[in-house]
Amino acid sequence: MKNAVGRDIPEEILQATGKDVFRGSHAMDGKEFRRDGARVKPVINSEGSKLLPSIKDALLKCEIKDGMTLSFHHHFREGDKVLNMVMEEVHKLGIKNITICASSMGSQNNPIVYMIDDGTITNIQSSGVRGEIGKAISEGRLQGLAIMRSHGGRVRAIESGETHIDIAFIGAPTADEYGNLNANGGKANCGVLSYSAPDALYADKVVAITDCLVPFPNWPHQISQIYVDYVVVVDEIGDPSKIATGAAKPTSDQRKLLMASYCTEVVKRTPYFKDGFSYQTGVGGASIASTISLADVMRERNIHMSFGVGGITKPMCQLLEEGLARTLVDTQDFDEYAIQSAATNPNHHYITAGEYADPFNKGAYVNKLDFVILAALEVDVHFNCNVVVGSNGVVSGAQGGHPDTAAGAKCTIVITPILQGRIPSVCTDVTTVTTPGEDVDVVITDYGIAINPKRQDLIDALKDSGLPLKSIEELRDIAYAMTGEPERVQFGERVVGIIEARDGSIMDVVREIKPFQFAD
Amino acid sequence: MKNAVGRDIPEEILQATGKDVFRGSHAMDGKEFRRDGARVKPVINSEGSKLLPSIKDALLKCEIKDGMTLSFHHHFREGDKVLNMVMEEVHKLGIKNITICASSMGSQNNPIVYMIDDGTITNIQSSGVRGEIGKAISEGRLQGLAIMRSHGGRVRAIESGETHIDIAFIGAPTADEYGNLNANGGKANCGVLSYSAPDALYADKVVAITDCLVPFPNWPHQISQIYVDYVVVVDEIGDPSKIATGAAKPTSDQRKLLMASYCTEVVKRTPYFKDGFSYQTGVGGASIASTISLADVMRERNIHMSFGVGGITKPMCQLLEEGLARTLVDTQDFDEYAIQSAATNPNHHYITAGEYADPFNKGAYVNKLDFVILAALEVDVHFNCNVVVGSNGVVSGAQGGHPDTAAGAKCTIVITPILQGRIPSVCTDVTTVTTPGEDVDVVITDYGIAINPKRQDLIDALKDSGLPLKSIEELRDIAYAMTGEPERVQFGERVVGIIEARDGSIMDVVREIKPFQFAD
Repeated sequence: MKNAVGRDIPEEILQATGKDVFRGSHAMDGKEFRRDGARVKPVINSEGSKLLPSIKDALLKCEIKDGMTLSFHHHFREGDKVLNMVMEEVHKLGIKNITICASSMGSQNNPIVYMIDDGTITNIQSSGVRGEIGKAISEGRLQGLAIMRSHGGRVRAIESGETHIDIAFIGAPTADEYGNLNANGGKANCGVLSYSAPDALYADKVVAITDCLVPFPNWPHQISQIYVDYVVVVDEIGDPSKIATGAAKPTSDQRKLLMASYCTEVVKRTPYFKDGFSYQTGVGGASIASTISLADVMRERNIHMSFGVGGITKPMCQLLEEGLARTLVDTQDFDEYAIQSAATNPNHHYITAGEYADPFNKGAYVNKLDFVILAALEVDVHFNCNVVVGSNGVVSGAQGGHPDTAAGAKCTIVITPILQGRIPSVCTDVTTVTTPGEDVDVVITDYGIAINPKRQDLIDALKDSGLPLKSIEELRDIAYAMTGEPERVQFGERVVGIIEARDGSIMDVVREIKPFQFAD
Repeated sequence: MKNAVGRDIPEEILQATGKDVFRGSHAMDGKEFRRDGARVKPVINSEGSKLLPSIKDALLKCEIKDGMTLSFHHHFREGDKVLNMVMEEVHKLGIKNITICASSMGSQNNPIVYMIDDGTITNIQSSGVRGEIGKAISEGRLQGLAIMRSHGGRVRAIESGETHIDIAFIGAPTADEYGNLNANGGKANCGVLSYSAPDALYADKVVAITDCLVPFPNWPHQISQIYVDYVVVVDEIGDPSKIATGAAKPTSDQRKLLMASYCTEVVKRTPYFKDGFSYQTGVGGASIASTISLADVMRERNIHMSFGVGGITKPMCQLLEEGLARTLVDTQDFDEYAIQSAATNPNHHYITAGEYADPFNKGAYVNKLDFVILAALEVDVHFNCNVVVGSNGVVSGAQGGHPDTAAGAKCTIVITPILQGRIPSVCTDVTTVTTPGEDVDVVITDYGIAINPKRQDLIDALKDSGLPLKSIEELRDIAYAMTGEPERVQFGERVVGIIEARDGSIMDVVREIKPFQFAD
């Protein structure tokens, strides 16, 4: 059955998942649902401590068994040690058929790829998957299905009960013995615990894993004792120096600086750029460069940001310090500067993943965004974006907050160089749709800028700007003229994963890769 | 059927309520239940504001109808204006058969007593009820049943789904147009919004009522936008000067000062009085005096409180300022000094009513209490306390956190003068049991101190103290010797209310009052 972005979703996948096809970003607006409820064992006893001597003890106390769903957060990104550590213990107990519900996974999880092959892990739900796990999924080695969800979509899945977490594991930079958890003040800090907030609320069992036990009560805390069953102390939960790996450095790449200057020129000409505007940007070099150049315009015009959202990086913190941003609301820190700011700056605030981006609550921060500056692996002539499946057909990226912020922001800008390596970024049809074109307003490349035709207001605002405005088809043609029209990636028949829309419907499917076969 | 405190609970009440009899304070420890889930209408739309022009509009948007359950908080105590204001609009719409689920009600609600008589309000769930509403209940004028719950018990009722709130109304000292609410920074502040936290989480619809709209995003906030459907601005939500009415003044009453000194002598001789101890006290003159005299011992011995809980008053804030208390965790402010402290002292922390006292979550602060100092209208020879039904048989008090803290604290001390007016406070059987004797360790009167026989450890710790230790029966006898044994209050047959235990079982029933009849 074809969905609202023209993708044909196989009947057997709709049946197997019980899901509907994607019917548009706002199809579920105002459609009542009932929130899920965790199964809780009350702690009335005033004597108990929640400390347990090991992860194994916690698994046994939580009555781990085959088929359970275990959840994890990825605030330590490539420095995370908790997911692997827990899964090693699950594996030692001989448990099979586990569903992992992680806020994201990456190459830090390469060491547990063998658990896919031996049936310990049979389903994966994540924002995305990089590294060996992504390869295993794309090679069809996961027995079940991979579900790729946005950060907001993950909260929706959990609170609606679609994903019921049996045991949530929360790596906590500090914890007290009664389970008050914080992201700062420990040996290894990650700034915020936002992605764990829905897990704490909706999981039956919640296990905190820390390497820094502090006296009760741990203040401030981001996760409350009332949601935590057990606390385990280990040697090391994460390596914060690996949080910023490969991201968030100021760029000197002329192509990126050009796109950044285009972005600033676009932003400052829209009606939303006025005192009190709100703003989110990613961690790509061009995004960060555009934040820095936008700051010059803000100083010049005495315009202040009411709040910045993120995904926070050093340049955003510097806007806050300078007073150009009044507040930062933070669901993830992308560098150690941002972690330090989250811990110390009174105007740098922790928000939960639900507050950030959940499409099913009574209104998330993304709904209040004026601008979001995003990247993409591919954008097509329908303005659909792909941020998950690489040009080789392998799952190697993550939805993150891309579809959430794109849907919420009044002006969604996607920056991408017209070629990524030798592959066109602007194309006729993206390999896999992750963010629908209806939510993408402006595409900025190093060869010109395309505005979504449905945004006549933005076209009017920019038509006399002198900027190199082009149609999205013209951008595609420029790309194809340089590389030739690329052959499409060839996939096998088996569906190995789905790209879930924010509201839980199916945006696209991901199929097994197969060796490329040339036409006769 | 007789319960664990010997009260006979009529079968028809067990059947009508579906409740069990009270089987002991820890009977439900570890008994799994499933949390309730609110019915939510997602707000995906990025255009909407949540502002509505009037309470009537909010009622209509929430589809108010006969038989609904509406909830309210009482942080403004006698200065609250929101409950009456909302109910007047409900009444104007001709709605009938409303259940009010309030964290407490008092004489500020006298103006709406006519709504009991005309069937607008047919059920009341509250910590307690003072004034005209209490009188109406005791006179049998409420068509349904009054349920008196502790602050922790209220959270349990809501999260377990026993009470499903259709519309929660939250009087908010500040709000932004998207529903981020705070208790400070407005025209009329109340320090914390703790009692509203479960309402926000579990009510289908949540309406914020404010008299101070602030720019988005309102930071810090205690209730998040993700739980709020609508925001209404009114002229005045409350009068903070009436929060402290009749409470919390330092006493010069020699009888109270004597009991306070007894209390300090008891506390300092227990093994729990050491650096890092935790402490809660009420607002009675003797309680406050004992906090002040305990501080002298703390200074002398260089002992610090790790955290104080409350129900916060000025003397507790002064302990914090002096560094004698490291932290205050706050669910209610009893004077304007405490409100100011909550707004400004970084070690004075907001906690939710669930974090404070809920017996059904994974561990509340009351479980971590070393000492709680409480008052009571009556204590009997089984150490049972009554804090709800006055000596005339009329509902005129509130459970508050009494049963919660008594159950949680390692040392629960009840201070009461041996006579209240001309009525004995220590008696053979309390009129109505609100806190079970198993949770009361020490009773301090102006005529001596009784220790619960099951606490041999405390008896040993105090036996050589020189304090006037007596058995509870001796204290009763002293009281009766002064007044004679009082005739018991005479009730009619009809059960007009129940005293609910923390875990939802029935501790006692409250019957209709009737004119006193002398024996022939």
